[in-house]
Amino acid sequence: MGSGAEGRGTGTYRRLPVAERRRELLVAALDLFSHRAPEQVSIDDIAAAAGASRPLVYRYFPGGRQQIYEAALRSAAEQLVGCFAEPPVGTPTQRLSNALDRYLAFVAEHDAGFSALVRGGCVTETSRTTAIIDEVRRGAAEQVFVHLGVPEPGLMLRMAVRSWIAAAETVSLIWLDEGRQPPADELRGWLIDQFVAILAATAAGDPQSAAIMSAFLAHERADSPAGGLARRALPLTGAAAHLLR
Amino acid sequence: MGSGAEGRGTGTYRRLPVAERRRELLVAALDLFSHRAPEQVSIDDIAAAAGASRPLVYRYFPGGRQQIYEAALRSAAEQLVGCFAEPPVGTPTQRLSNALDRYLAFVAEHDAGFSALVRGGCVTETSRTTAIIDEVRRGAAEQVFVHLGVPEPGLMLRMAVRSWIAAAETVSLIWLDEGRQPPADELRGWLIDQFVAILAATAAGDPQSAAIMSAFLAHERADSPAGGLARRALPLTGAAAHLLR
Repeated sequence: MGSGAEGRGTGTYRRLPVAERRRELLVAALDLFSHRAPEQVSIDDIAAAAGASRPLVYRYFPGGRQQIYEAALRSAAEQLVGCFAEPPVGTPTQRLSNALDRYLAFVAEHDAGFSALVRGGCVTETSRTTAIIDEVRRGAAEQVFVHLGVPEPGLMLRMAVRSWIAAAETVSLIWLDEGRQPPADELRGWLIDQFVAILAATAAGDPQSAAIMSAFLAHERADSPAGGLARRALPLTGAAAHLLR
Repeated sequence: MGSGAEGRGTGTYRRLPVAERRRELLVAALDLFSHRAPEQVSIDDIAAAAGASRPLVYRYFPGGRQQIYEAALRSAAEQLVGCFAEPPVGTPTQRLSNALDRYLAFVAEHDAGFSALVRGGCVTETSRTTAIIDEVRRGAAEQVFVHLGVPEPGLMLRMAVRSWIAAAETVSLIWLDEGRQPPADELRGWLIDQFVAILAATAAGDPQSAAIMSAFLAHERADSPAGGLARRALPLTGAAAHLLR
C-alpha cells in the first residue's frame, strides 16, 4: 500500500469523505504506534501505511506527529472505554466476562500501543496523554457503576472500582511482558475473581458497598463466574475458621 | 535559611562531609519537588532552601535540575521501599499494618512529590523516571514476598502482589485528591483487607497461591487485622450461599 498505487489506485483517496479519511489515517497511525515507540514513527510512515500523501496527512493533522499521536491515543481510548459497554443481560459477572473478553482482545491486538497508552508515552505533552488515559479509567469506572446500579458511588466504592481498574492495567502489562501468559480466558477469570474479592473486602467495612454487594450477589447464579469463585474459595473458609473464635 | 546566614552561619556548609551535604541538598530539593511541579523549581530555589550557594549545588549536581530531580526521586524511591522493610515479628497482617503506617505517612508528607513520582513527572527523561518508580514497585513486591516466605513467586502470585501495589498507589492518589479522606487508619485497614482479598481470590485458582494463603492464615490470629476482616466478611457467606447449590 506504500505508494497508494496498488489496490486503491492513484489519487482515489481524494474522493473519500473527510471523516472516513481521517479515521483511515488514525487506524494506520494507531497500528504503527502499537508496534513502535512514538518517536520512531514518522509522518512519511503514516502516509505510506494509509496509502496517502504527506501533504494530505498534514492537511488533516497540521500539528504533525504530536497531533496524530494524541488523536490516535484518543481513538484507542474510545475503543477501550467501548469495551466496557455491555447490555444489561445476564448476571453482573457474566457481563464483566464479556467486557473483559473485548478488553483483552484490544490489549493483545495493540500490544505496544496499549503499553504506551497506559505508561503515558512522553513525546512532549505528558499532561495531555495522562489526561487521555485518565479518561479511559473514569469511563471504565462509570460503566462498572452503571452495571452495579450505583448512580452516586461513595468514596470507598470509587476507591474499590478504581483499584480494580489499576489492577487490570498492571496485570495486562505483565501479561504482555510474559508472552501472554496465562491464556486470555484464565486471565479473564482471574480478573473477575479479583473484582468480586475487592468489592467483597470493601463491603466488609463500608455500608454502601455492603448494600451493593448484597444486590450483586443476589443477581448471581451457581453457573455464573461468581458461582465458580464461591465454590473454589470454599476451602479458605475452613483455613480461616480459627480467626472467628 | 534563604541566605545561609541564619542558624548555620555563613560558609559553615563548606565544612560538612560530602555525603551529608549531598543528602541535605536532596532533602531540600525533595521538599521543593513535593510542593511544586519540577519545572517550577530552580537551582536558586534549591540552593536557598538548603542554605547553600548556586555554584555549590552545581558542584554536587553538574547536570543541574534534571540531575537533582532524578536524584531526589531516587531518594524518595529508597525511602518508599524502606517503608516496606519490617522485622518478622507479629502476624503477616500486623506487619503489613506497620508498613502501611509508614507508607501513608510518607504519602501525606510528600503529597505532590509522591504524585509526581507515581505519575512519572516528565521533565525530559520520562523513561528514567518511569524506571525509578518501577524499582519502587519491584522493591515493595520483594518485601511482600519475603514476609509471605516465597523465594520464587510464580506468575499468578506476582500478578496478585503487583495488583495490590497498583491498587495502593491508585487509592493513595485518590486519598490526596480527596483531602486525605478516609482517615489514614481507615485507609490502612482497607488496604490490608484488599491484600487478604486479592491473595484469597488468587488462591482460589492457583495452587502456589493456595499453599501460601493457607500458611498465611495459619499465622494470623483472631485479634489481628485478618481476624477483624474474617468477622466483618462473615455476613457475605450467607449472601453467597445460593451460589454453592
